[in-house]
Amino acid sequence: MNLEELIEKVAKGEIKLHQVEKYTNDKHLATEVRRKALEKRFNISLKNIGHYSIDPSQAIGKNIENMIGAVQIPMGVAGPLKINGEYAKGEFYIPLATTEGALVASVNRGCSTLTAADGVKTTVIDDKMTRAPLLKCPDARRAREVAQWVEENLEYLQEKAVSKVTRHGKLRGVKPHIVGNNLYLRFEFETGDAMGMNMVTIASEEIMNLIEEKFPDAKYLALSGNLCVDKKPNAMNFINGRGKTVIAEAVIPRKIVEAKLKTTPELIAEVNYRKNLVGSAQAGSYGFNAHFGNIVGAIFLATGQDEAQITEGSHGITLAEVTPEGDLYISITMPSLEIGTVGGGTRVPTQREALSIMGVAGGGNPPGTNAKKFAEIVAGAVLAGELSLLAAIAAKHLAKAHKELGR
Amino acid sequence: MNLEELIEKVAKGEIKLHQVEKYTNDKHLATEVRRKALEKRFNISLKNIGHYSIDPSQAIGKNIENMIGAVQIPMGVAGPLKINGEYAKGEFYIPLATTEGALVASVNRGCSTLTAADGVKTTVIDDKMTRAPLLKCPDARRAREVAQWVEENLEYLQEKAVSKVTRHGKLRGVKPHIVGNNLYLRFEFETGDAMGMNMVTIASEEIMNLIEEKFPDAKYLALSGNLCVDKKPNAMNFINGRGKTVIAEAVIPRKIVEAKLKTTPELIAEVNYRKNLVGSAQAGSYGFNAHFGNIVGAIFLATGQDEAQITEGSHGITLAEVTPEGDLYISITMPSLEIGTVGGGTRVPTQREALSIMGVAGGGNPPGTNAKKFAEIVAGAVLAGELSLLAAIAAKHLAKAHKELGR
Amino acid sequence: MNLEELIEKVAKGEIKLHQVEKYTNDKHLATEVRRKALEKRFNISLKNIGHYSIDPSQAIGKNIENMIGAVQIPMGVAGPLKINGEYAKGEFYIPLATTEGALVASVNRGCSTLTAADGVKTTVIDDKMTRAPLLKCPDARRAREVAQWVEENLEYLQEKAVSKVTRHGKLRGVKPHIVGNNLYLRFEFETGDAMGMNMVTIASEEIMNLIEEKFPDAKYLALSGNLCVDKKPNAMNFINGRGKTVIAEAVIPRKIVEAKLKTTPELIAEVNYRKNLVGSAQAGSYGFNAHFGNIVGAIFLATGQDEAQITEGSHGITLAEVTPEGDLYISITMPSLEIGTVGGGTRVPTQREALSIMGVAGGGNPPGTNAKKFAEIVAGAVLAGELSLLAAIAAKHLAKAHKELGR
Amino acid sequence: MNLEELIEKVAKGEIKLHQVEKYTNDKHLATEVRRKALEKRFNISLKNIGHYSIDPSQAIGKNIENMIGAVQIPMGVAGPLKINGEYAKGEFYIPLATTEGALVASVNRGCSTLTAADGVKTTVIDDKMTRAPLLKCPDARRAREVAQWVEENLEYLQEKAVSKVTRHGKLRGVKPHIVGNNLYLRFEFETGDAMGMNMVTIASEEIMNLIEEKFPDAKYLALSGNLCVDKKPNAMNFINGRGKTVIAEAVIPRKIVEAKLKTTPELIAEVNYRKNLVGSAQAGSYGFNAHFGNIVGAIFLATGQDEAQITEGSHGITLAEVTPEGDLYISITMPSLEIGTVGGGTRVPTQREALSIMGVAGGGNPPGTNAKKFAEIVAGAVLAGELSLLAAIAAKHLAKAHKELGR
Repeated sequence: MNLEELIEKVAKGEIKLHQVEKYTNDKHLATEVRRKALEKRFNISLKNIGHYSIDPSQAIGKNIENMIGAVQIPMGVAGPLKINGEYAKGEFYIPLATTEGALVASVNRGCSTLTAADGVKTTVIDDKMTRAPLLKCPDARRAREVAQWVEENLEYLQEKAVSKVTRHGKLRGVKPHIVGNNLYLRFEFETGDAMGMNMVTIASEEIMNLIEEKFPDAKYLALSGNLCVDKKPNAMNFINGRGKTVIAEAVIPRKIVEAKLKTTPELIAEVNYRKNLVGSAQAGSYGFNAHFGNIVGAIFLATGQDEAQITEGSHGITLAEVTPEGDLYISITMPSLEIGTVGGGTRVPTQREALSIMGVAGGGNPPGTNAKKFAEIVAGAVLAGELSLLAAIAAKHLAKAHKELGR
Repeated sequence: MNLEELIEKVAKGEIKLHQVEKYTNDKHLATEVRRKALEKRFNISLKNIGHYSIDPSQAIGKNIENMIGAVQIPMGVAGPLKINGEYAKGEFYIPLATTEGALVASVNRGCSTLTAADGVKTTVIDDKMTRAPLLKCPDARRAREVAQWVEENLEYLQEKAVSKVTRHGKLRGVKPHIVGNNLYLRFEFETGDAMGMNMVTIASEEIMNLIEEKFPDAKYLALSGNLCVDKKPNAMNFINGRGKTVIAEAVIPRKIVEAKLKTTPELIAEVNYRKNLVGSAQAGSYGFNAHFGNIVGAIFLATGQDEAQITEGSHGITLAEVTPEGDLYISITMPSLEIGTVGGGTRVPTQREALSIMGVAGGGNPPGTNAKKFAEIVAGAVLAGELSLLAAIAAKHLAKAHKELGR
Repeated sequence: MNLEELIEKVAKGEIKLHQVEKYTNDKHLATEVRRKALEKRFNISLKNIGHYSIDPSQAIGKNIENMIGAVQIPMGVAGPLKINGEYAKGEFYIPLATTEGALVASVNRGCSTLTAADGVKTTVIDDKMTRAPLLKCPDARRAREVAQWVEENLEYLQEKAVSKVTRHGKLRGVKPHIVGNNLYLRFEFETGDAMGMNMVTIASEEIMNLIEEKFPDAKYLALSGNLCVDKKPNAMNFINGRGKTVIAEAVIPRKIVEAKLKTTPELIAEVNYRKNLVGSAQAGSYGFNAHFGNIVGAIFLATGQDEAQITEGSHGITLAEVTPEGDLYISITMPSLEIGTVGGGTRVPTQREALSIMGVAGGGNPPGTNAKKFAEIVAGAVLAGELSLLAAIAAKHLAKAHKELGR
Repeated sequence: MNLEELIEKVAKGEIKLHQVEKYTNDKHLATEVRRKALEKRFNISLKNIGHYSIDPSQAIGKNIENMIGAVQIPMGVAGPLKINGEYAKGEFYIPLATTEGALVASVNRGCSTLTAADGVKTTVIDDKMTRAPLLKCPDARRAREVAQWVEENLEYLQEKAVSKVTRHGKLRGVKPHIVGNNLYLRFEFETGDAMGMNMVTIASEEIMNLIEEKFPDAKYLALSGNLCVDKKPNAMNFINGRGKTVIAEAVIPRKIVEAKLKTTPELIAEVNYRKNLVGSAQAGSYGFNAHFGNIVGAIFLATGQDEAQITEGSHGITLAEVTPEGDLYISITMPSLEIGTVGGGTRVPTQREALSIMGVAGGGNPPGTNAKKFAEIVAGAVLAGELSLLAAIAAKHLAKAHKELGR
């Protein structure tokens, strides 16, 4: 069958999309065939989707199936942003991929202000990746027994299960939750520089095999019982954390607030209070912030993070206060920032390049330090984004007030 | 100043990133300059980021600032998926941009099963975009008066404010929330085929000008008081909806479940019950589902939706039940799917092409029908993704049970 | 059978508790028999439980079954509290039944401070009782049709169903929620001076009979589908309200704060900010307050409200701010205060007497005004309780700070 | 001043309510004076409030201030209920104080069914009382240092602080939460048979004194930072537990379901699924149950528990499933049941008598066993209440279906 015939058959649905690789060993070619088949079927042009530098032979299988090309999302850069972290020290440029106009400019303004105020202090409070397999037990009492055995045998499970399947993963704890006859074992792992979902999935699977053997009456039903919690808005991660729990803070002198942001610490604090705290309270929100999701989202896309985890990245709290000295204290607290610098989408060329702009591409030395450094940079950027938006709101209000006074 | 000098100065930070356009009118060139400056400064290569077909003169300003190129995210396609909607009728291919291996294959399997079962029934329950400006009032009683006036003057506000600034936007209602002396007016708009955030932002601004004039003692503090709610996980949207509220359902004959998914309706229902309902309940989640976020995320990226709104797209509930006839009923309910087929990132070439695969690029006739059709397709794809993952868990459990019996 | 024998048989379990009335027509005697049977069986004295002035012939059936006597809960009084409401105007004494030492004293101090500051301003924002029956429909589209019909036929339902079974109940609206094939119809009623659960339960039952007749394929499964929401903590009522939505506010001059509360407006505002707003945010709480539940609970017990509804009474938000003049603005917002002055436990003598202390026993003229007046008084008392506790915390902090300075 | 004059002056407000004890040493008399003053002032009769057997000289100060008498709440009894617990073993009668007609009868029916099905299995999963003081730190990094020190010095804090002020209280752990510059230390204590709030409050105060001394730059702002969480609906306790975390379960043979409850396991499971799981999910509830609050509330009032903690008692999940054998599995999971058998309201005579009916009045041997036994009984009663209500709904549906078939 020649190429034209193959395209024709795919277009007609006689050969399915995922079967194309059976007819050609060349993954690049398979990608072309699928794309052209769609063009033919729907009489459309997908030439821009066909404009990519990704190597399909690398991407297919690892990152994508039924590949037809790539989407391009514009990438801009904000910075420099001075960060006084424990891992990130110095001035950083932050790559942001987005189609929302004004976002990069807004973060950039925040970076400029924060850097003028001697930078952002960042602190990683916690670092763990979790997975919560689900067992159906005969009853709650048996579930409690299983849970107790697991709690008392973490080292054994590390040795006999976890270390067999992962080099970097370390089982550091477990928190059992029992609902009726259901046992959810929320395992906590250290995962080095990887975001770690794959690692903990494999490790949890190994652990569960041991537990099933030990407790044959406890039926292991699912590797995730939705208490992990992955890719869903939830109180669990908001309260107990997942991925990196990280805080960024700054004190911005009143003069800088007035000169660069055209407003006052008092007004920024008031806007944050009525909008991010009171408003979000009334909304039943886990996001007591202005727009974490925007900055998290743009960095996630630029750097190959899991886009569905933007959800947990949008959890968190922004505080803005006037200090006794009359300056502005501002902080952001991110309970569940799930990121990595190795594995997954970080291997795709443009994403890896974006990580390299921040000096965090690949594994750190010692392992885990790159991901923590990256977490600090993300937190710094999120603080910049929050500051900029809150200040814009406050400045507008101030301008209007002035105008009214001038009438 | 020649190009080399410009790059040099940008690299050294003597010229700031956003100032480059001052030195060259060519936005493509400005993009190159910034990228090369970063390459120079950090001694890295960003050649893949430089490989794009986006026109910077179109993107800069509308979608991005400080552009340095584009990120490429691999795009695959799942389908065909038969949809029996009110807007989407027929078989569809769904473009998915992701770096998570196995996702496209999983959705594809779901599509295949659903199509074999005569397709997905989709229903758009509600369609509105909201914005909730915040006013600080003298007291709660005054806030109640302002709210009452607004409720009684929607037509006036439509005529004097909304219709002045938007052609497609229509103010269809308002829900006031009062907390102490704070009034949050959650305006609801119809926004045609646009996701509508820009439209309702501009319209709300106009409305607020009228309200401020009418009630000078009610201080208009912020255009968003965080009760909209935009880009944050929250109960408000989960309960009261935002964007499209859409449901997809299917009844899958037992034979198809057994043949194609290698499991049973009973097991799928049980996994959904213990994981998606009980597990998510215990997690304090607004996502009673397995992985809405994955499918929503991949479609959002492929089609130029706002990545931060993946958060609200991950809200929702999956149900799986055994029918009296012994077949599988499965449904997904998405309360807050915020999408559009015009404006924002949908204008970027690869994204527009992706929309064209589904026949939903640009405005519909009548306006709004394209976005609703798109919502039905997304819902169908999400159902496919849920079915596939739940079935995989159930099948694994079944296989293990069989193996144990065989011992 | 003589009394001794009867007691003996009940003690041995040969006659069941609820069968005692079969052997004696005297409900007071039946109460004695059960109590003495328990005394005998467990060799204990229940003489205090036997010390009551309630008339069992009134209580049994209406309020209690298997009656053995009554519990006594100490009742204290706080006040006077000056209230500037729309229904409650003047100075009020508030009966509080509790066993928590210091609670009455604390509320009393708050009343004294608020009264000195010229009283509390109270505003009832909304007033409705809800019930949300559940129907299982063939599919979501059918659910949408049923919902639309209901929305369009409220007057018909009022006439043909509601007005047939209740004189005071008025169906004022409905909010449908659809999850897959499930339809929850959240009916909103006005219920006069009654808390109204009984009324709306009966009325909803009538409505559902009509709906079932009209839509025989929609199976009416339960009178409450848990979206009402009754007696459970939930975002629905917190956001959308249930019962009375009421706000109490006051501005307390700095001098009074300093003189009576031994602290400053700034410190009270700070405690409220860090504890009630930030702390409750991090807890995933629907109670952004210090102790609504204490005051609500004590008034509920004293006045015969439904004790399980203390749950929704504990929902809500406290705000404390320093005004531009340097005084303290403080408010409480209660979204779901479910109370009444007629029916249920309000008929029990001690409870009715407690209502009479506030001048709100029985029905108002016009109907509904007594319950609204009562809501304003409760809100005022809750504000007093919040103010007092926040001030105590702030004063302690201030005292410590002074002590440290004095070292 | 004679009694008449005293009453007159109190009635006129010339002597305040809390000053009455200054004019008479007799607390009983003071109670009379206040009550009569109110009667005079408002021209009402409070004679039933004056009918009590509580000793004011015991109650005033410990349980109440400004006492005027007592409220009487009718008490009924449900049972016997067979419980197969680890602490509660045998048949129990449960005292319930309520004014909600039909509640006791409903619980009673559940008890009867469960006992016929060989009883309830109860399991206490966890037992702790928490208090979360709040410190304002210089920054997040310092907060992390303080938290680490506390985590590493639990034994020291037990020895130097906790054991100094309480005999039964034991500090068993701490979970720090950091939001910006705020540190919340959620201390976990064992508190024996007491509910424990007083104990942990005093102990936490002692602990904080040590921490303040050690970290003078960390300002201790409030003994409760609202992450405890006490008396507010919240995800923290729902997920992480507070007080007793207890589960009650039963398997009820199909024949018993049909004979005693007039319905089927399938229908009960379906009602629970659509109402308690799906409905509560959509409501954003922490109460995935039918009416925990009713049963918890009635037991709390009868036994002198803290009425405001009914809120947390209403948190939890009910599961109902058809077993492979066709029987009904039903369970209730209560994450945060805050109860005690000593201290607080348990000392009031009627309440103490009510506890004695269940054999749990006073301290256990060893300490803590009485409270755990009580927790198991409450859980059993709550299961009875859930079963009865779910069955009633299901039976009604079944009856209607039969009627329709008969047409």
